[in-house]
This record gives sequence, C-alpha cells and structure tokens, in this order.
Amino acid sequence: MNNQSSPQFRFELLHTSTKSRARVGKIHTPHGVIDTPGFVAVGTNGSIKALDNPTVEELGVQLMFCNTYHLMLQPGSKIIKEAGGIHRFINRNQPIITDSGGFQVFSLMYGGVHQELKSQGLKKIENSVLKINEEGVLFRSYRDGSPILLTAETSIQAQKDIGADIIVSFDELPPCHMDPQKLRHSLDRTHRWEKRSLDAHLANPNNQALYAVVHGGIDRTLRKKSCEYLSALPFDGFAVGGSLGKTREEMIEVVKFVFPHLPADKPNHLLGIADLPSIEACIPHGVDTFDSAYPTKAARHGLLLTKRGRVRIMAGGNASYHRPIEDDCTCSTCQRFTLSYLCHLFKAHELTVYSLATIHNIHFMVQLMAKYRNNILQNNI
Amino acid sequence: MNNQSSPQFRFELLHTSTKSRARVGKIHTPHGVIDTPGFVAVGTNGSIKALDNPTVEELGVQLMFCNTYHLMLQPGSKIIKEAGGIHRFINRNQPIITDSGGFQVFSLMYGGVHQELKSQGLKKIENSVLKINEEGVLFRSYRDGSPILLTAETSIQAQKDIGADIIVSFDELPPCHMDPQKLRHSLDRTHRWEKRSLDAHLANPNNQALYAVVHGGIDRTLRKKSCEYLSALPFDGFAVGGSLGKTREEMIEVVKFVFPHLPADKPNHLLGIADLPSIEACIPHGVDTFDSAYPTKAARHGLLLTKRGRVRIMAGGNASYHRPIEDDCTCSTCQRFTLSYLCHLFKAHELTVYSLATIHNIHFMVQLMAKYRNNILQNNI
Repeated sequence: MNNQSSPQFRFELLHTSTKSRARVGKIHTPHGVIDTPGFVAVGTNGSIKALDNPTVEELGVQLMFCNTYHLMLQPGSKIIKEAGGIHRFINRNQPIITDSGGFQVFSLMYGGVHQELKSQGLKKIENSVLKINEEGVLFRSYRDGSPILLTAETSIQAQKDIGADIIVSFDELPPCHMDPQKLRHSLDRTHRWEKRSLDAHLANPNNQALYAVVHGGIDRTLRKKSCEYLSALPFDGFAVGGSLGKTREEMIEVVKFVFPHLPADKPNHLLGIADLPSIEACIPHGVDTFDSAYPTKAARHGLLLTKRGRVRIMAGGNASYHRPIEDDCTCSTCQRFTLSYLCHLFKAHELTVYSLATIHNIHFMVQLMAKYRNNILQNNI
Repeated sequence: MNNQSSPQFRFELLHTSTKSRARVGKIHTPHGVIDTPGFVAVGTNGSIKALDNPTVEELGVQLMFCNTYHLMLQPGSKIIKEAGGIHRFINRNQPIITDSGGFQVFSLMYGGVHQELKSQGLKKIENSVLKINEEGVLFRSYRDGSPILLTAETSIQAQKDIGADIIVSFDELPPCHMDPQKLRHSLDRTHRWEKRSLDAHLANPNNQALYAVVHGGIDRTLRKKSCEYLSALPFDGFAVGGSLGKTREEMIEVVKFVFPHLPADKPNHLLGIADLPSIEACIPHGVDTFDSAYPTKAARHGLLLTKRGRVRIMAGGNASYHRPIEDDCTCSTCQRFTLSYLCHLFKAHELTVYSLATIHNIHFMVQLMAKYRNNILQNNI
C-alpha cells in the first residue's frame, strides 16, 4: 500500500521563529498553495455565505472549509461527483478541505459547549442519532427521514466523491463532561476509526491528502497518547479537535501542550477556532491553519473587524459617517462604499449589506494572517 | 421662471415603428443615457436587493428606481444630501429616478389592488395615515412614530435633497373602487398637487427633470383630461399611474388609450409594471420605460427568466442539471455556475443564490429590452 496520498500535496516549512514555535510555511495542494499561518473560511454548503466563490478567491482565501455532513445530505455526494467534484460544482479553483461529518452528527447528541453548531439547519434534527457502535453512527436524514450510516469508510467514500484537496478522518466527538474512563474508551475508538479512515483513503488516494484528528479532551496524558499514535501513521497532516475546554484560557493551554507533540514536518490545523484573540494566542505555539465561521457570521450580524477593534455597523454616529469603514482598507467594500451607506442598508435589512460586510471581514482576516506571517519571518512573534 | 429643468436632460426620439406606436429613443440625463424602451430596476432603499450598485451598472441597468418614502424615513433625505446626493451615497454613476412618496403613503390607507406594496416594511405601518387634506398627507413614521407631513413641496424638497436625475410629482393615489364623482375630485386635487410640485421644482431645478403622473383610473374621459392638463405644463416627461384596472387586459386598454394622448417629443414611463406579457403588450403603444420589482423578486423566490419561459430553480431534474441555466446566456451567473449548484444553494437557503439568480434575471431583462429596441428599429413590432 502506498503511503503517499497525493503526489501534489507537500508541506514546505519556510521559517520557525527564533522567539517561539511560530512558523511560516506553504501547503502545496493540487489546487494551489496555502500560506501558513492561514485563515480558512467556512463555506458549510459549498458557499461562503453571501459571496460567490470567484469573489472569495479574489479576496485571497487560500483554503475553504466545507462540511461533509451537510453536503452528504444536500445535494448528496453523488451529485457533486457527477458534477466533476466539489471544485467544479461550486466553481472554486483553489484548495478545499472537508471534515468527516462526525462533528455534526455527534454534536446532535451532546450539545453542551458544542451546541453552537455551524448551521441553523441542524436545529431541526435533534434526537436524530439512532445508534452508535463500533461500526459508526446511524442517524436520520433531516431531509427525507432516511437512515444514514456514517462510518470511517462511508465518510471517506463521501469525501472521495466530494473530492476536496484535504480530507479528514472520521472521529468520535466526546462530550466535554465525559468521565475519564469513558474518554479513554472514546479515544481508543476514535483511533480505530482514524486507522480505518486511513486504510480506506490509501486504498484510493485520489490525489487527496488525509488529516488525522487529535483527541483527548483536556487530559494531557490522552492528548499525548493521541499525538503519538497518530503521528506514527502516514497521515498527511494533523487537525486538533475534540473538547478544548470551556474557556479560551483552557483552549490555549491545550494548544500549548498539544502542538509541540505533532511532527514539525507536517501541516497542522486547529479546528473551529479563529477569533482574533485565539489566533494571536495560538500562533506562537505553531498552529498553521485556523477555520472559523466567526468573521463571516459577525459580518452578517453587523460586526466589522478593523484595526481599531470591532465596529458595530449600527453604532451611534455611523449613520452619518460618510467615509469607508477604514480609510486605508483596500477591500472592495471600503473602496466603493461608506459606512453611512452600510449602516443604512443594515437597518433596512438589505441583503446587499451581508455581502459587503463579509467581503470586508474576510479581507481583514486575509491581511491579518499576512501580517502574522511577516512578523514570524522577522522573529517578532 | 425657467421652464427648462435640467440643461442635460433631453429626449431623443430615434425611430417610431411603421407598424405600431412602438418607438426607440434615448433619454439623456446628467448621469448618462437611458435607451428606450428600457427596463427600470427597482432599488427601493438605494439597493437592488442582493446586488451592489457597481454590479447593477455592469449588468447594463440604465435607470434605477428608488422610493422617496423609504429613503425619507431611513436614512433620511438629509443624510443623503450630506453624502453628496443619492449617486454618491449608493455609489451609482448612472441615472436614478425617485417617486414622490405618495404611492406608498396612500397604499397604506386603501389596500385593494394596491396592497402588493414594494416593501414588507410597510406592513408595520397600517393605520399610520393621520390626515389628508388639500395641503397633503400627515402620517406617522414607522421608525420613530414622529408625524411627517408629505406635500407637493416637502416631497419635491426631499427629492431635491436625494438628488435623482428624474423626480416625480406628488399625487394622490385613489383606490380602484372609488366612485366617479370622488375620482373626479381626486384627479383635480392631484392636478393641483402636481402643479405645486412643478412650481417647487422650477424654483430650484437642481439639474433634475420632473415627470408628471397621469391619473384618471379606468375612466377614459378623466385620463384624457389628465393628459391634456399635464401636457400643457412644462414637465420633462410623463408617468402613467393610478388605478390601471383589475386585470392585465384592463391595464392594456388603459395604456392603449392613454399613451397616444401624451406628447410624442417627451419620454414617458409606465409605473410599476414590467412583467413580460405586459411589456410585450405595452411596447406597441409607445411606452418608453417600465419599472417593476418583479424580475428581482422572482429571482429571490427561485424563479428564473429564460428564453424558454420561467424556470423554477427547485423544479425536478435541476438538482442534477450540470449546465448553466441557459447555455447561450452571457450573464456572469451562467458563465460561472450550473443550475445544479444554484438549486443546491436555494435548497440550503444560502444567501449567495439570491445574488446569482438576481444577476441572471436582470441580465435577461436588459437583453430582452435590447431585442425589443432592435425589433422596433426593423419595424417588426
């Protein structure tokens, strides 16, 4: 069996700071390069909400995160395969990553800190998990009520049909309040599922790269064990998932402990976290990519990211602020529209403002990550 | 008093068909030319829903319709004036027309065939009309409850502050079931209001053109009287409004009767009607411009306009139709995305699809009007 997934997938480590574990690199994929540290925009259904994909590419988003759970149910991975794969289906010519679907399915059961899911559609499907066993998870489709078995093999097959550049192993998402004994059992099962994912992947590499997901909750012994087990297998990269604690401080402690245990010559990813203080805190620990729906969701809720902090579109004074959000911002929103107009559109619930605000926030994230890379190259981080 | 409103406003009649009253012309305005017959896109709040204005310009929409009622209440005409006028406020460099606000205010009272209003926001403000007399209409703002007096003079002043290329006289919108005696009184008052609008306008032309609104319901005597009264005054153009009957057939009869009574050397407009069969039926009677929210609203409801008729995005088979909406369509949606992807986005309630469908429908309208102009030039209509 070949343990080279995709001949076109390669991590190039350009520089590690002399001051921290922060590093700058390039992830080479069949659809181009991802500069790291990089922000990964979330387009659950194959769409960054309120934007079309060519616009997202122009904004410089080098990696887009799509959710297998959503795409399996709608339009179905077969439709995407028929279309010639996700890149052609959604008209994106740059790298795409899909997750395994596990996060969403398990989130249905446990809720808790995971209840903040990535799509409102999920709210409809509470109690839709029918059975979990060694094989995988049986759940009910919210679209047509049909039972769907999600296993390592079916998740990988769906991700093969979808055809992203980077795919992710099937894992179990334990609830954050799970007792230590059960968490150990969950971790062992996740490792078996990830190994099965790897086997299914290597049987048909399909020019894709496969990331493992490191688990173990906030238990250092288990996190270390997970890093060691997964690092010994020929995964192409590593995502850090599972419970990262209940606060940002706990999350940072987990990141600080876990990332040094990952192989330095492979790319890594921090799942679901890209708020600004977390990025700032995690980059020195060597995180390569961050995904989060936060910047786009914030935009739709009227929160603009700026160098002077978050700006509420509706804040007093903005109605007559006849200048761009930021005078020196080069995004197409700031180049073309005033904050006064955006404020008016937001008050009038005009759809256009969701696109314009999203453009600004994504541009902000792309520029921010470029600044971080520059600072690392200069050993300032 | 100068009866030349705007030195830059001029109607150029290029051709009248040998076969009908259909005509091709150019309306010259301070912000460029409007080819007629032309489709006027409705952007109530200064935004064609789901698109930004530079995109609307690229689509070839030569005239955009904004609603004074909405803009007066939010953001307020003073904010728009402060911004340097509507063109700068919304970033549109092509012609804009505003109405007087009368239609919306009177629609609040009467409902009936006029209940299909142009904004959902209006539903909140039932019973908000406090008083109507010779002076004008007193109504309550849905935004802050404050009383607002809309008169010929305040409407024109608001439209001066907003600064569109073409503005419209203040009129009374009588309910369609009004008895003949009352309708005559209403028409006389509308004429007095329109004359006051003209006087207010000519006192400060502001490089704008002023259209009169022809009333008279479905009563031919009154329609003729309205045409004659208004044609004798130095209006720059004529809009046909008021009740046009309860069916498309009645509307076409009114159009057929009224338009020949308007001066051939001035541009005219049919208010609020631009569905495809109506355009087809009205062009031979010499209508120059048509506004309607129909093509954009249809897009957001998943109805696509095509040469083969209306296509429902959700129609069976579209989920796996891996081709554009129309193979030979040159719009950016058809050039970049498949109907399968649009169908998926629509099912997933993704905001992006409202933009993509709107682009297609507007492009369709722009192309359709170009075809009509060409057919008129060849005397085929």
